[in-house]
Amino acid sequence: MKKIKIGLAGLGTVGKGVYEILKKDAALISQRTKSQLEIVAVSARSKKDFVDANVKFYENALDLAADAEIDVIVEVIGGNDLAKNLCEAALKNGKKYVTANKALLAEFGFELAELAEKNNTHFAFEASVAGSIPVIKGFKEGLAANEIEEFYAILNGTCNFILTKMQQENLDFSVALKQAQDLGYAESDPTFDIKGIDTAHKLALLAAIADGAKPAFSKLSIEGVDEVSIEDINLANELGYKIKILAIYKKLANSSQQAVYPALISKAEKIAQVDDSFNAILTKASNAGWNFMVGRGAGGFPTASAIVADLIDIASDRYSCEFGVKTAVLKTANIDKISNRVGGYFLKLLISKDLAQKTNLAEVIFGDKIKIKNSIFIDKEEEILCGFITEKHKEQDVLDVLKLLDSNLVKSSKFLRVEEIVGF
Amino acid sequence: MKKIKIGLAGLGTVGKGVYEILKKDAALISQRTKSQLEIVAVSARSKKDFVDANVKFYENALDLAADAEIDVIVEVIGGNDLAKNLCEAALKNGKKYVTANKALLAEFGFELAELAEKNNTHFAFEASVAGSIPVIKGFKEGLAANEIEEFYAILNGTCNFILTKMQQENLDFSVALKQAQDLGYAESDPTFDIKGIDTAHKLALLAAIADGAKPAFSKLSIEGVDEVSIEDINLANELGYKIKILAIYKKLANSSQQAVYPALISKAEKIAQVDDSFNAILTKASNAGWNFMVGRGAGGFPTASAIVADLIDIASDRYSCEFGVKTAVLKTANIDKISNRVGGYFLKLLISKDLAQKTNLAEVIFGDKIKIKNSIFIDKEEEILCGFITEKHKEQDVLDVLKLLDSNLVKSSKFLRVEEIVGF
Repeated sequence: MKKIKIGLAGLGTVGKGVYEILKKDAALISQRTKSQLEIVAVSARSKKDFVDANVKFYENALDLAADAEIDVIVEVIGGNDLAKNLCEAALKNGKKYVTANKALLAEFGFELAELAEKNNTHFAFEASVAGSIPVIKGFKEGLAANEIEEFYAILNGTCNFILTKMQQENLDFSVALKQAQDLGYAESDPTFDIKGIDTAHKLALLAAIADGAKPAFSKLSIEGVDEVSIEDINLANELGYKIKILAIYKKLANSSQQAVYPALISKAEKIAQVDDSFNAILTKASNAGWNFMVGRGAGGFPTASAIVADLIDIASDRYSCEFGVKTAVLKTANIDKISNRVGGYFLKLLISKDLAQKTNLAEVIFGDKIKIKNSIFIDKEEEILCGFITEKHKEQDVLDVLKLLDSNLVKSSKFLRVEEIVGF
Repeated sequence: MKKIKIGLAGLGTVGKGVYEILKKDAALISQRTKSQLEIVAVSARSKKDFVDANVKFYENALDLAADAEIDVIVEVIGGNDLAKNLCEAALKNGKKYVTANKALLAEFGFELAELAEKNNTHFAFEASVAGSIPVIKGFKEGLAANEIEEFYAILNGTCNFILTKMQQENLDFSVALKQAQDLGYAESDPTFDIKGIDTAHKLALLAAIADGAKPAFSKLSIEGVDEVSIEDINLANELGYKIKILAIYKKLANSSQQAVYPALISKAEKIAQVDDSFNAILTKASNAGWNFMVGRGAGGFPTASAIVADLIDIASDRYSCEFGVKTAVLKTANIDKISNRVGGYFLKLLISKDLAQKTNLAEVIFGDKIKIKNSIFIDKEEEILCGFITEKHKEQDVLDVLKLLDSNLVKSSKFLRVEEIVGF
């Protein structure tokens, strides 16, 4: 039986998951691949956890790339310093490479894909986006006969957990974040998650495949979950919406929208009902129509399951271009300014009681520039708290009106986007 | 550029969809495959719709199998007479074969897979189950590192449309069926759809892959949508449930449950909210956990999208074994009797007013054999209509009790199953 010899870089939760799946499910996997998938070497920061005498241990992950016995390297160390060097060295040596490293690929995925092509090898990264959901394979193969016209995705379990806690238990952001940290859902430094950076890394990869373009992380507009208050959530709820951090891609005539932001979605939408640490991707494909996928986005076994699926593809000689087409064909993404977005908005204003007396209040505040389709008013002793849902407008037009509000009458204002999903 | 020459058997909605996608999306597809996918011959019942002078037209589909120019045959004629002959002839001639024909594969899939292996070729059938949802690829590749432990699937858009109409508009089955026919969702002879046979064909295919077994259509327990009345739907609704026709697979220690039946599912479950003609598959995988997919199950372009995805895989030299593993390894499915099922039940009884007076009514009716966890009573002039939801019991035990009910007190009884989904 053919043997596929694997070098594993990283022995954290995901690395251990890969190790364990390859052991406990060895019979199943060899039936499915007609091969034997064997970890022959491991590298990790510390050897203390590691006790398999039949497997080489390298203190330096780069030694995996130099080991001639190894066919495939699995990298689950993260970051883009050591991981980048390892990936480059592995590809230069013609090895296959499987990774969950979205930060690395969002920034250097194009160069690495070029390097893989040059060395007649491949890398695979199903585990880097939405863990257990095979969305990369879905886009590149399952929906290969389609243009991806738009997608809306919940790609960060930590953010989704925090928003769910806030909404269900009426908690402040900081309290929900603390709970997420206590449960191990959020890192002690949660910046990458709560600022939307992790979601944006994943968006860059999915959008590259959807768009037939190089990943464009540095051009993305990114807003995090830390911009959402419990007051926003409660007002949105009264108006019939939930707030989710969405990674959004929309194909336009000669460009695309690609952005990460907290968005209001009607509570009736299926994606609004994806709570806790689940991930989801709602895609509109040109021929297949709407497609919705939900699953665990993180965790040792769900992520390891995706890594082993990539290994099984390699063992079965199933390959696709890293971003769906040859690198020479990948265009440079033309991402539209977010201020050009046309859509609905949620406007939260704190207004003086004087102003609140007026009939046609919305017209008094916004003039004829912004059309309001739904509103709610809450008495706050000194002021009135208002939530407005607008009709569709160009974002810049709404921002221009907000900038000119009379500060004597409008004490504060906040702006979030509303996503309306049509036909699903 | 490599050319993949295709023979298309069938020019109905799906065949035309394939034809059109290969024309309008030719540039996209050739970027993704580095090949040119070209229909070189067509066969259909009548030539009248067909006007492409560059493409051969065969009156007899079998001529496609004999045409040496053709690399791949796409079969969208359905049934298992001509289609079976065509498939066998194509495989014997070493051609690749792509089909949406679940009836053919549910009955003869194993023999055809053996034939494909023997002739060193392959067939692919993503379009045969859940149209636009890449669930076959999902099971065979995306979740390849998992045992599929259970799945619950809505696989027939016609049934789902009928149930949705009945529930939303309080219609009798026959009225909803008529609407489905008028809209083209149901055939003039709707037997295959409404009797659950189409769903069972699809279940046989998915369960074969999940179970590592030969498709076992003839052993499946099948109940159709025609067994559901508007009274059942309304009572279930009052108790917090919706009724869906589910294809169900559950892995047991040395066997499996595989069945198609109308089931009550809590309204809070995501799969209960999949309405209209949408399909859905909710899967529990051993490592990846729960995975939920929703999309269009039928229609020209969604189904054609899956067929072209299979063609793109072929053009890209991406293959997997037809049922996930080599035919020599496929076991014979050991399907447990449905009467061994352990689960909850919905019992609808029409009882005399005398009986209704009793305290501990459920105990009087069912003794201590069936534990009731929820009930509802509706006054019907002469009798009382009762809906009961039971705790988990072995199905045979419940049937035994129902058989012995006192017919003077219980005028009629009906039994449906309740599916409780845990952890999603």
